Amino acid sequence: MSGASLIVPIILSGGSGTRLWPLSRESTPKQLLRLVTGHTLLQDTALRVARLGIAAADVAPPLVVCSALHVELVSAQLRAVEVAPAAILLEPAGRNSAPAIAAAALHCVRTIAPSGVEPLLLVLPSDHVLLDVPAFASALEAALEPAKEGRLVTFGVVPDRAETGYGYLRRGAERGGWAGLDAFVEKPDRATAQSYVDSGRYLWNSGMFLFPAHALLRELAEHASALSAAAERALEQAEVENGFVRLGPAFLDCPSISIDYAVMEKTRRAALVPLAAGWSDVGSWAALHDVLPKDRDGNVAAGDVMIESSTNTYVAAHSRLVVAIGLHDVVIVETDDAVLVVAREHAERVKQVVEALRSRPPGSPRKV
Amino acid sequence: MSGASLIVPIILSGGSGTRLWPLSRESTPKQLLRLVTGHTLLQDTALRVARLGIAAADVAPPLVVCSALHVELVSAQLRAVEVAPAAILLEPAGRNSAPAIAAAALHCVRTIAPSGVEPLLLVLPSDHVLLDVPAFASALEAALEPAKEGRLVTFGVVPDRAETGYGYLRRGAERGGWAGLDAFVEKPDRATAQSYVDSGRYLWNSGMFLFPAHALLRELAEHASALSAAAERALEQAEVENGFVRLGPAFLDCPSISIDYAVMEKTRRAALVPLAAGWSDVGSWAALHDVLPKDRDGNVAAGDVMIESSTNTYVAAHSRLVVAIGLHDVVIVETDDAVLVVAREHAERVKQVVEALRSRPPGSPRKV
Repeated sequence: MSGASLIVPIILSGGSGTRLWPLSRESTPKQLLRLVTGHTLLQDTALRVARLGIAAADVAPPLVVCSALHVELVSAQLRAVEVAPAAILLEPAGRNSAPAIAAAALHCVRTIAPSGVEPLLLVLPSDHVLLDVPAFASALEAALEPAKEGRLVTFGVVPDRAETGYGYLRRGAERGGWAGLDAFVEKPDRATAQSYVDSGRYLWNSGMFLFPAHALLRELAEHASALSAAAERALEQAEVENGFVRLGPAFLDCPSISIDYAVMEKTRRAALVPLAAGWSDVGSWAALHDVLPKDRDGNVAAGDVMIESSTNTYVAAHSRLVVAIGLHDVVIVETDDAVLVVAREHAERVKQVVEALRSRPPGSPRKV
Repeated sequence: MSGASLIVPIILSGGSGTRLWPLSRESTPKQLLRLVTGHTLLQDTALRVARLGIAAADVAPPLVVCSALHVELVSAQLRAVEVAPAAILLEPAGRNSAPAIAAAALHCVRTIAPSGVEPLLLVLPSDHVLLDVPAFASALEAALEPAKEGRLVTFGVVPDRAETGYGYLRRGAERGGWAGLDAFVEKPDRATAQSYVDSGRYLWNSGMFLFPAHALLRELAEHASALSAAAERALEQAEVENGFVRLGPAFLDCPSISIDYAVMEKTRRAALVPLAAGWSDVGSWAALHDVLPKDRDGNVAAGDVMIESSTNTYVAAHSRLVVAIGLHDVVIVETDDAVLVVAREHAERVKQVVEALRSRPPGSPRKV
């Protein structure tokens, strides 16, 4: 290939988002909420790629993959920020990232760039925060070279703390703007996480990728053949109308696995590009608090809130007055049917609590 | 006097109760709330005196003094527990305890015991908790002797901690079941409070009294003559109907002062009887938490509540699910228009916050 590359953003909006309960619900997962800016995370993701200034590549309209349950919200939110997607692929049920990416890649090579061009799929979760867009664009430019050489590029976030909630990527041999990918490492304990950060060799696994489309499809066929075949059938069964691609029932035959597990841990063509762009997966209320602007006591107040004698709190009132007095490192989220009060250090436990609420006996109010 | 004495309970229900916001409101102050038992504090107070077993005295039906704003709630709550008061005196506006007690004392000597009998007025705030009723009855029996001798008896609570939120009473010379009253002492600092408790000479000022009615009226006329005269005019102006005594506008001429300040600090006829009966003024959410039965982690849950990894919390949900995770020494009170989350040690500050809410600009939701 020569000349300008074609980047096709694949925005993954299939998450169900229990970690930001009681604001995130089955009907309105995290990516469809206004959490950080005046836009939802999905809108911010779509605008980020729409406004990317990359000299060495053209950026196509995005392909969006979401649950069929959220089709109206997703399309309304994109319309509201004047982003016209190339298509919205609707999953009959969530199957993690690999099936969604497989279906999007197939749709892309058949409809968007069918004529021998090798599109570069920029895979982006729709529910992450990236504060430094120019740094993101630079990382993307650095990823073009290995991607154009047929490598599957994963973006590894340069860690700024010994986080135990993420998986890590170990850098291999340096190749200029990118590196080999030595290994995927599971979530470490605190001491191990600190040694990773100190070594400079480990990056957070962000779930963002740049994939040459045909190379990815070949790797999927090799390492995840059943998944690949089921995704292909789902696309053949699809009902296509007005830019919506309603994936067929074969999609449910795909195993529910991540692209890391299906391909990245197995391929010999992986590459790693570091990213230092104010990234957060907003994976808990504490993580959201971290990325928001705070007052001088570290407090964040949203809505009809009064905060007194408190430090490092996040207080969000959506339907009623909330008063917080004498609290430290606490998150309070009020909605019209539930209130959460959680110590920041326990924010990860919200997910389990929501699961416990879901298992309440029939007839109980579920509120999830 | 000889033979059985006549005890006339005077239940003071005029408090406006901002300390238990957001549950206590102008329209439903603390004494009209179900906080500890299945009854409201007013109902528990009325039942406590209705069921007093005192050998040496007859107990008349109570006189209740409350704000005219609360007449319907107060009479409905008394009816619900089948307590028929001798009368309900309605204040056009609150003027602290001295005017309320003066009006009740005058009403008592004119209507309940007009024929030379010296009724003993058992003055009880309606918003306190007394867990040990037999101990209360014993203290009352000990108070009969000095009261029948014409002394104004104040009940002093035996302190079980170095409380800085109460005034203290210093015991004078011992006289058997009672003592002289040496001095009223303002709220002390922590070290002073500890020295008071250690000395054994100091008791908490509870606001409970046993007053010979005529002796009290004489002391009021001597030490608070303007108040006494205004209370008398208010009663002359009163509209009386169906057991309701609607005090006239002269009541507003009474200075707003406590009976301690108006009489007890000035009289030479004060007596002090100790009381160790599980008393609490329920003066804050922390104080309420203290008197409630707790689980083994010190938590109290009321309503649709889930508490995880927390100790010493009080969580009350009145209209929605409340989830608390990883909290220690925290109070959460949820109502249909406001949520309070306050560290126990800051519970006293709720009053100031409510005052700040009251001073919000016109048009703001007041929620107080």
